[in-house]
Amino acid sequence: MRTQVGIVGAGPAGLFLAHLLARQGIETVVLEARSRAHVESRVRAGVLEAGTIDTLNNLGLGERMMREGMVDDGLDIRFKGRTIHLDLPGLTGRSVRIYGQQEVVKDLIAARLASGHPLVFEANVDRLDGLDSGRPRIHYSHDGVAKVLDCDLIAGCDGFHGISRAAVPEGLIETYTRSYDFAWLGVLAKAPPIADMTYSHHDRGFALCSRRSMSVSRLYLQVPATDTPETWSDARFWDELHTRMFDAGRTEIQEGEIFQRDVARLRSYIAHPMQYGNLFLAGDAVHIVPPAGAKGLNMAVADVRVLARAMASFFAGGSRTGLDRYSADCIDRVWKTIRYSVSLTDLLHRFDHYTPFQRGMQMAELDLIAGSEAARKLIAEQYVNLSTVAD
Amino acid sequence: MRTQVGIVGAGPAGLFLAHLLARQGIETVVLEARSRAHVESRVRAGVLEAGTIDTLNNLGLGERMMREGMVDDGLDIRFKGRTIHLDLPGLTGRSVRIYGQQEVVKDLIAARLASGHPLVFEANVDRLDGLDSGRPRIHYSHDGVAKVLDCDLIAGCDGFHGISRAAVPEGLIETYTRSYDFAWLGVLAKAPPIADMTYSHHDRGFALCSRRSMSVSRLYLQVPATDTPETWSDARFWDELHTRMFDAGRTEIQEGEIFQRDVARLRSYIAHPMQYGNLFLAGDAVHIVPPAGAKGLNMAVADVRVLARAMASFFAGGSRTGLDRYSADCIDRVWKTIRYSVSLTDLLHRFDHYTPFQRGMQMAELDLIAGSEAARKLIAEQYVNLSTVAD
Repeated sequence: MRTQVGIVGAGPAGLFLAHLLARQGIETVVLEARSRAHVESRVRAGVLEAGTIDTLNNLGLGERMMREGMVDDGLDIRFKGRTIHLDLPGLTGRSVRIYGQQEVVKDLIAARLASGHPLVFEANVDRLDGLDSGRPRIHYSHDGVAKVLDCDLIAGCDGFHGISRAAVPEGLIETYTRSYDFAWLGVLAKAPPIADMTYSHHDRGFALCSRRSMSVSRLYLQVPATDTPETWSDARFWDELHTRMFDAGRTEIQEGEIFQRDVARLRSYIAHPMQYGNLFLAGDAVHIVPPAGAKGLNMAVADVRVLARAMASFFAGGSRTGLDRYSADCIDRVWKTIRYSVSLTDLLHRFDHYTPFQRGMQMAELDLIAGSEAARKLIAEQYVNLSTVAD
Repeated sequence: MRTQVGIVGAGPAGLFLAHLLARQGIETVVLEARSRAHVESRVRAGVLEAGTIDTLNNLGLGERMMREGMVDDGLDIRFKGRTIHLDLPGLTGRSVRIYGQQEVVKDLIAARLASGHPLVFEANVDRLDGLDSGRPRIHYSHDGVAKVLDCDLIAGCDGFHGISRAAVPEGLIETYTRSYDFAWLGVLAKAPPIADMTYSHHDRGFALCSRRSMSVSRLYLQVPATDTPETWSDARFWDELHTRMFDAGRTEIQEGEIFQRDVARLRSYIAHPMQYGNLFLAGDAVHIVPPAGAKGLNMAVADVRVLARAMASFFAGGSRTGLDRYSADCIDRVWKTIRYSVSLTDLLHRFDHYTPFQRGMQMAELDLIAGSEAARKLIAEQYVNLSTVAD
């Protein structure tokens, strides 16, 4: 089998790339290791930035997102029982939209399958070769049969643990990491959400109340990295959430049936450059953000917008200029996005090893934000608009 | 001898307090351990914030500062050869004024001596007692004679190494500290300065070009804490400064005779509460900022404005309310000021122990500031206006 662009991974990066390229008349094959059901049920973040909303709409795939997704005009930060309100349209002229990543993925998969272009689930990619040649190949197996996909270019969109980044020869990619000794316990609960996405900095740790619909809340607690979902009974979860949200009377946050729960470790990771020969890496394959800031999906979309433009230019006229600059064109934005996510993480979490001086610095920064419109605008800008790239 | 307020230390905190109280008809005695010549020649920062300018003018003591001090409308930050320009009036509506701390001190001393109110140099304070009573006392010696000053209130304005903070019983003051393993080498040179106060972040370390007059430059380099002024020959200093300021052609920064040089360790320190009984601490006695941001003098002035108001209210009507709240009224501002100074220090210096990830975060923050007016406004606001307190 042969295609123009072989895409490894049917997460947001791979699926958006496939659609962006299809719009330019470029052939792609998308290979995904897991089943459709699995991919469509992976619960991730649900905040779409302005640039992501625009991309989905420009692809003609935003109809359900615009209908079912909710506009979020406010972002709140609580500390010491006070609330800092960030009026997103007032500060930036834009809003974000709440629409779960798995819903975006469902829409992109349905449209891809409807178009008849190949998207192969349960395709196990074994190895990539010829990456430094004009005929890179993807070796994979499907239904127990070994296959080879000949490509002009390969896009590695298979996430942090994927095979694509690992296919680059040792020593050519530099990595930058920071780890955390805590995790996020996330739950979905059948409970009407509070009005705004609300972060809370509490002495006992970070908490976050957000929504997936008017009847489903997405709620998070900072927990030790060693905790499992089973560590947290429903009662313990609600007790802790009320406390950390300064909802002492338990009147504000409505409880409901918890029907999904997961514990996710936090990590900051950048791999650079994001390319080798004719392999181009995007999304989680080359950068992981801690989840505060909700940038994972948005950053992946921005990557593949840059990549799709470069690939289109290559196939249109044979120029490699855009391809060769892909990583360089992304790197400042990627670092800024990581920085935002890390600084928000630093601001809002409890770090057990912090000195009293460092804890005082956290509170002083929250005080600063509460008292300065410029500080609130700076956060709001990055929340709404950090992953915007020129088309 | 007896007075209403005994003031230990004739630095900016003590002298401003004496003048602010005199304006209210409150008697003070200022005791200073060093000679007048010594105090007047201590070279410190030279950036006066809006609130400090206003205070000096409102005391009727700003005439020379307004005549000789220079208005600074711009603050520049360089990195990777790029320059971020902060237009202070455009961003904040205010400017800062360049006028050396020792010039402020000279003006305050001259006015104090002219007023005939007591200011005693070379007065060695041995101990304070009765701090938790209505008759606190200062034991000191002058001209070899032991003396006692009976006070209603005592102001401890004798700096980080002074006796005042040490007079508070053990365990009643909490301290918060952060140390740095580098220092600032500062020089005064007979050389016309570059236009704007200019910070530079360079791989080799921080540098700063500022001015004291149109013919005197105040220049700084980050150096190892173990360096002495003698470590740095003139030639080595200029070479390093050109390099770190991205002045490769050596055409921008004019060299000249270096007539003063010092090496100052960096420290962040907060002691809280800033009071005990009838002892009230202000300025460096209770907080030290790293010098980036130029907040030391400005923070001290803000402290004593709060303190003078509380003392005036006490002497006018006998109410201790303001006195009792003095520390609480200062603490948020003090933390914000420390945070600003620390974050500017973190942004601009080379930290040898930083991981590549942390270095990337620094560059991403500089990129963010370069690209966001809100970010520039946030820095400018704090540079110009952080020590403003309501009167």
